[in-house]
Amino acid sequence: MKIKSISIVFLAFLFCCILSTTANSQPQSIMGFSPEAAQNQITLEKTFDQLVRPEHLDEWMKYMSARPHHVGSPYDKKVVDFMAEKFKNWGYEVTVESFQILFPTPKVRLLEMIQPTAYTASLAEPPAEGDASSALTAEALPPYNCFSIDGDVTAELVFVNYGLPSDYEELEKLGVDVKGKIVLAKYQGSWRGIKPKVAAEKGAIGCLIYSDPGDDGYFQGDVYPEGPFKNEYGVQRGAVMDLPSSPGDVLTPGYGATSDAKRIPKEEAPSLTKIPVLPISYHDALPLLKALQGPMAPTNWRGALPLPYHLGPGPAKVHLQLEFNWDMKPAYDVIAKWPGSTLPDEWIIRGNHHDAWVHGAADPISGLVTLMEEARVLSELAKSGYAPRRTVVFCAWGAEEPGLIGSTEWVETHEDELKKKAVAYINTDGTSRGYLFAGGSHSLEKFFSEITEVVDDPVKKVSVLKRRNAVELVNNRPSWSYYQLGALGSGSDYSPFFQHSGIAAFNLGFGGESSGGEYHTMYDTYEMYKRFKDFDFAYGAALAKVAGRTTLRLANAEILPFEFQHFTETVDTYTEEVIKLAETLRAQTMKENKLIEDGSYLLTADPSETFVLPKVKEAVPYFDFSPLENALTQLKAQAAKFDELIKKGVKTGQNYTALNQVLKDMERTLTRSEGLPGRPWFKHFIYAPGFYTGYGVKTLPGIREAIEQREYKSVNTQIEKVAEVLQLYSGKIEQANKLLE
Amino acid sequence: MKIKSISIVFLAFLFCCILSTTANSQPQSIMGFSPEAAQNQITLEKTFDQLVRPEHLDEWMKYMSARPHHVGSPYDKKVVDFMAEKFKNWGYEVTVESFQILFPTPKVRLLEMIQPTAYTASLAEPPAEGDASSALTAEALPPYNCFSIDGDVTAELVFVNYGLPSDYEELEKLGVDVKGKIVLAKYQGSWRGIKPKVAAEKGAIGCLIYSDPGDDGYFQGDVYPEGPFKNEYGVQRGAVMDLPSSPGDVLTPGYGATSDAKRIPKEEAPSLTKIPVLPISYHDALPLLKALQGPMAPTNWRGALPLPYHLGPGPAKVHLQLEFNWDMKPAYDVIAKWPGSTLPDEWIIRGNHHDAWVHGAADPISGLVTLMEEARVLSELAKSGYAPRRTVVFCAWGAEEPGLIGSTEWVETHEDELKKKAVAYINTDGTSRGYLFAGGSHSLEKFFSEITEVVDDPVKKVSVLKRRNAVELVNNRPSWSYYQLGALGSGSDYSPFFQHSGIAAFNLGFGGESSGGEYHTMYDTYEMYKRFKDFDFAYGAALAKVAGRTTLRLANAEILPFEFQHFTETVDTYTEEVIKLAETLRAQTMKENKLIEDGSYLLTADPSETFVLPKVKEAVPYFDFSPLENALTQLKAQAAKFDELIKKGVKTGQNYTALNQVLKDMERTLTRSEGLPGRPWFKHFIYAPGFYTGYGVKTLPGIREAIEQREYKSVNTQIEKVAEVLQLYSGKIEQANKLLE
Repeated sequence: MKIKSISIVFLAFLFCCILSTTANSQPQSIMGFSPEAAQNQITLEKTFDQLVRPEHLDEWMKYMSARPHHVGSPYDKKVVDFMAEKFKNWGYEVTVESFQILFPTPKVRLLEMIQPTAYTASLAEPPAEGDASSALTAEALPPYNCFSIDGDVTAELVFVNYGLPSDYEELEKLGVDVKGKIVLAKYQGSWRGIKPKVAAEKGAIGCLIYSDPGDDGYFQGDVYPEGPFKNEYGVQRGAVMDLPSSPGDVLTPGYGATSDAKRIPKEEAPSLTKIPVLPISYHDALPLLKALQGPMAPTNWRGALPLPYHLGPGPAKVHLQLEFNWDMKPAYDVIAKWPGSTLPDEWIIRGNHHDAWVHGAADPISGLVTLMEEARVLSELAKSGYAPRRTVVFCAWGAEEPGLIGSTEWVETHEDELKKKAVAYINTDGTSRGYLFAGGSHSLEKFFSEITEVVDDPVKKVSVLKRRNAVELVNNRPSWSYYQLGALGSGSDYSPFFQHSGIAAFNLGFGGESSGGEYHTMYDTYEMYKRFKDFDFAYGAALAKVAGRTTLRLANAEILPFEFQHFTETVDTYTEEVIKLAETLRAQTMKENKLIEDGSYLLTADPSETFVLPKVKEAVPYFDFSPLENALTQLKAQAAKFDELIKKGVKTGQNYTALNQVLKDMERTLTRSEGLPGRPWFKHFIYAPGFYTGYGVKTLPGIREAIEQREYKSVNTQIEKVAEVLQLYSGKIEQANKLLE
Repeated sequence: MKIKSISIVFLAFLFCCILSTTANSQPQSIMGFSPEAAQNQITLEKTFDQLVRPEHLDEWMKYMSARPHHVGSPYDKKVVDFMAEKFKNWGYEVTVESFQILFPTPKVRLLEMIQPTAYTASLAEPPAEGDASSALTAEALPPYNCFSIDGDVTAELVFVNYGLPSDYEELEKLGVDVKGKIVLAKYQGSWRGIKPKVAAEKGAIGCLIYSDPGDDGYFQGDVYPEGPFKNEYGVQRGAVMDLPSSPGDVLTPGYGATSDAKRIPKEEAPSLTKIPVLPISYHDALPLLKALQGPMAPTNWRGALPLPYHLGPGPAKVHLQLEFNWDMKPAYDVIAKWPGSTLPDEWIIRGNHHDAWVHGAADPISGLVTLMEEARVLSELAKSGYAPRRTVVFCAWGAEEPGLIGSTEWVETHEDELKKKAVAYINTDGTSRGYLFAGGSHSLEKFFSEITEVVDDPVKKVSVLKRRNAVELVNNRPSWSYYQLGALGSGSDYSPFFQHSGIAAFNLGFGGESSGGEYHTMYDTYEMYKRFKDFDFAYGAALAKVAGRTTLRLANAEILPFEFQHFTETVDTYTEEVIKLAETLRAQTMKENKLIEDGSYLLTADPSETFVLPKVKEAVPYFDFSPLENALTQLKAQAAKFDELIKKGVKTGQNYTALNQVLKDMERTLTRSEGLPGRPWFKHFIYAPGFYTGYGVKTLPGIREAIEQREYKSVNTQIEKVAEVLQLYSGKIEQANKLLE
C-alpha cells in the first residue's frame, strides 16, 4: 500500500470535530502551556491520534526488515534511502550524514572441544519452518561478538556463571582459578561486554558466552518457531567493546569519526576486548558443559540444561580461533528537520536506530516505524498550519548495534550546536506489547506523567499510567499517583545525548507481554514479529501517541516543562541508597571478616569439597555525606520555590525566552567536564551505566561505584563533586526563580 | 568380624584411666544429677565413647542391607532374628512382638500414554554399575505407592506442581480444572500422601508422582552411580495412606493389630487413598510432560527437564492400571529391655525401625546400627557394674515404611503400661554426615543442649553445638547459646509415642553433607552408603554418643531433667506466630479482595493468556487470643519458679520419687483425649504433622490449621482448648514446685 498525504480539507474537518467535542469537556491543563495554548495542544494531539495508522508500521517494517541490514550492508543503504525519501516526501529538510567507522566482521570462527571428546561447534542458526526470512543467510552476519580481538587459543574450560566480579569471588572460594583458561559465561546478569572484560582482568585467555535455556530458551516456553522463545540454535550477536568506558567509533574516541578525523591505530584502541570472545547457542554449549568436572556450580548458577553444572577447570579443553575483517564501513545517520515556526534554534530531537544485527524486525525496526509514523503525522499537521513552535529533528541512527556509533559520532561532531540548541532527546528502540516502560530525566517526570494519563492502553482501554499502577499493586510494590521514570543506564542511542552531553532525555517503549528469544538472532524477523510480538501494531500506535505527545508538547510549550521537585526527591532517594549501601557494605564486611576470623566458615565447610578461606577485607570507613545532604537541602528549597512560582501559571503572549534558556541548560549543569573516574566520556554525575553492569544504571555513579568497588579514598571526593553539581543546579533554579518573580 | 565382649578387666582399667583424667578437670554439672552423680556419669560417658566402634556399624549394615527386607519378606525375618540374637547375647530381655497388618504389594502396574503418541512407562530401576545390591531385583518390591487403591483409569493429564492446595488455587486462576483428569505431581513440597489426597478432593481420578531432576536429580550433581544423586530411572517408593489422620495398620485404627483384634473391612478403611496413585521416574515423566500443551506452568513450578513445562489438560492422555495383593503380613517389633537397677518401672525407650523399601542401607539401617552399638556398649557397661538406674528399652520397629505401623501398633497395644512407665522416647532413622539435626520436646531442650556441648563433630573436632551455631551464623540466622530443638512433625516412629500418647520424645540424626537421591529407591544400598554417605561411620559413632548420652542421662538422673522455661519461650514464639498468621492472612485477604474488586487483576492479565478472576474471599475476622496469652502468663510464672527452685541443686540420696512422677507425666498433660479436629488419633495440642503437609510440623495445630484453612468459627474454640491444656500444664508445674519447696 502506498502512503498518501491526507488532504488538508479532511484534516481541517477532523480538527473541527475534535474542537466541538473538547469544547464541552472540562478544560485540561498541560505543563508549560497557557490555558489557551493547552486547549489547542489537546486538539492537536487528538488529531494526531486519529491520524496514526498502524498499517503504516506494518508495511514499513515488512519492507525494512526484509533483508539483513547491518552496518555497511547493501540493504542498510536501501533502508537509509527509503527513509530519506519518505522524510523528503513528507516535507522535511533531510541530510544523510555518513561516518567512516571501524566495523569488524567475522572471517574465521572456529570452536572445537579437543578433550575429553571431540566436538566442533556448529555456530549456525538453521532456517525456522514458516519463516522465510530466517533462511536468507547469504547476506547475514553469522553469530559473533563485534570488537572481539583476533585470537587463537587452546585451554581448559571454566564455567563462570554470568561472569560478574562477584562470580569470580565465589570461584576463588571454591578453589577455581581462570588464569590461562577459557571461560564459559551465561548471557544475562550484565551487559555482554562486561563478561570478556572481567574475564581478562582475572587472567582468562578466551571467553565464550551462551544463552542458557533457563534464562532464554525452553524454560520460558515453546521455542521458535513453535513459540517465541530461543531454540537450541539461536545465538545472540552483539558488541563487546568497553561501552561503559566510552561508546562510539573505537578509532575516534571522544570526537566525530568524520572523513578527515585523526584515527588512532586499531592496536591502541582502548575499547577493544583484551581476549577473543564468541557467542554460542545452548546446542553448542551442551557438550562443553557436559564435559566439565570439578566442583558443582553454586545452586543459583545452574541453568536448565539436563546436566549437573560443574565448574571445571576441564577436563573439557577447547580450541577457539577467531579472525575478523577489520574494515572501515559507513555509518549513515538520517537527519530530518522540521524547522520550528517560532523558535527554530531550539531543537526537540527524536531518534531510533536503523541498523540491525540481521533483519531486526523487533530491534530496531519496531521502534523506527513508530518514529516514522510520528514524523509523517507531524508533517501532516504542520502542513495544515499546525507547525511545531520549536524545531523537531527526527533521526534514524546507523551503527547503533556495534556501540551506539552513529548517534555518538553525530553528537560528538555537532557538540557545539547541540549545546546551543538541544532541549531534549527522545529515544525509542525495539518495542512490543504490554506496559509502557519509560526512563529519563527526572526534571521531566511530572511533564511525562501527564502524558501517561491521557494515552490509553489499546487492549485494556485505561490510561497507560493506570495499567502500570495496577501491575505495581499486584506485585506488591508501591503505586504512585504519577508515572515514575526509570533512571537511564545505557544500551541505546540516548547515551551520548544524556550522559555525554547532558541533554535531557527519554527512552520509551512497550513490553512485558510478548517475551521471546529473538534478540540479535537470525529469528528477529517480520514473520516472528507478526506471530508473537505486536502483531497488529496496536502498541506501536500507542507508542507513537506517547512519543508524539512528548515531542509536540516539548516543541510547543510556552515555558519548557521542566520542574525540580521530582528530580530532588529522586536524588534524595539515591542519596539514601548510597548511604544505606555504605552501611550495608560496612556491616557485611564486618560480618564476613568475623566469620573468617572466628572460624565459622571453616567449621561449616563441607570436608568433601574444596573451600579456600577468603582474605579479610579492609573495613569500610565512615564517609562524609554531609556536603551532599547540605546541597540537597538547598536544592529542595529552590525546587519548592520554583514550584510555588510556576503555579501562578503560564501567560499567553508573555516572553519566556530568558527563562527557557535557563531551563534548557539545566540538565547540562549535572555534568562535569572531567567526567566520571576512569571514564571521562561519561560526564553526567547523576546517572551512568555501571562500570561492571554495562547497560544497568548506576545512579550517583561516582559515589556508588567507589563504595561498591571499595575505593574508599575517592568516596568523599566523589560526594563533594556531586554536591558541587547540585549546588550549581540549585543556582540555576534560583536564576529561573528570579526570572519568574 | 565377630564382636566379642570386652573383658570386664579392661573396662575397669578404662574407668580408672578416665577417672584419673577427669579428677583434675573442672567439675561439670549435668541437669538432674547431684554433683557426685554427675562426676560418675561423666566418667561413664567417656567410657561409653571409648567403647563405641564404628566398624560394628559397618559390619552390621553390610549384613542387614544385603538383601531387600521389606515388611513380610524372608530377609526382614532374618534381620529380625539377627538383631534378636544379638540383643540376647548382650544380655537383654528380648521379645519379638508380631502384629498382623494389611500390607498391599503390587500385582499389576501399567502406565501408558495413548495420545498424542504412544509410550509405555518402564517403571523399572536397572542395576547400577559397581553396585551388586542394585541388581538383586528378584526379592525387591518394584516402585509403587503403598495403600493406593486398585484402579483402571484413562484420562487427560494435568501437571499440578507439588499438588498442594495452593497449587490448585493457581490452576483455577489459569482456567485449568483437574476434574476427571489424571494429575502429574512432583515429589517434595509436601509428604507424598498429601498429593493423591488433595487431587481426589479436587476431582482427579488418578495421580502420578515423579521426582523432577530440578529437586532430586542431575540439577543437584552427578547421578548414581557416578555421583549420589537420583538418576533418570530412580523412583521413590512410599506409603500414601492418610498419615496425618492416623498412622498404623489401616484395618485397626486406634488399637493394636494383635492376632485377636477386630478388623474393619478394607473397603471401609478411611486411610486408603481415594484414587489410584503411582510413583514414576523422570525418565518416564519426560515423554508425558513433553506431550502436554495448554498454559505454561508458573515459573516457580518448572523443573529441570529440558522442555517447556505446560499444564495441560492434554493432549497427553494416559492409561493407569493398578492392582495390588491385599495381603496380611507380619510386622515384627524386636523389644530388648535392660531392667533398671533402681527404678525398673520407669522406662527410657530408644527406637529405630528395621524394615526397608528395598535394601535400606541408609533408611533405616544407618540409624539402626547406631542403636545396636549403643545397646551393645550399654550392656558392656551394665555388665561391669554400671547398669542404668531406670529400665532402658531398645526397640527395632517393623513396618515403619508403610505407615509407622510396628511402632503404632505397639504403642496402641501397650498404651496402659506406657502411661505408667514411659519417661521418654528417643528415635533415630536414616543418618549420615554433617550437622546434628534434633527435634523433640522443648521441656527437654536445655537437657539435650548440654549433651550437644560435650559431643564433638568427628571431622571438625568442635562440639556439635558449636558447629551447628557456625552454620546458623554463616546463613544469617540467629545463633543461640543452646541447641534449639526442632518441633516434631511426623515421618518416623516417634509419632505414636509423642503425638498419640504424649510421651516426651526426640528424633536425632546427622545430615547435610551427603545428600543423594537414594531415598526409597533400589539404590539405597551398602555400596552407595560406603561411597557417598557416612563411609567410615564416623558420624554414626557420633550419633551413638549423642543418643547414648540422651538415654543414659535420662536413665540415671536423680531428678528427671525436665524444665519449663525453654518450653514456655517456645510456645510463646508459636503464639506470636499464630497471631501474626491471622494478621497476615487478614491483610492478604483484604489486599487480594481489593485487587479483585478494583480491577487490578483484570488490568494486569496478559490478554494472550487465560485468566479466571478468583472469587472474593470471606474477610478474616479478629480472634480472641487472650485465653492463650493469659495461660502463657501463668505458665511463665510457674516455669520461672521451677527454675528458681531447681537451681538449689540435686541432693545425693534424697528421694525424688513424687517429683519424678509429676515430671514424667508433664508431656501427657499437653494432650487431650478428643484429639485434634477431624483426627482424634493426634492428641498433642502443641505439635502435630500438618493436615496438608504430611510430615511437616504444625505447632499449635488446632489453632494454626483453623486459621490456614479459613475455618474461622473454630479458631476461638481451639484457642481455648490450648489455653486449658497450658493451664493444666502450669498446674502440674505448680505441683512440682510444691514438692521442691
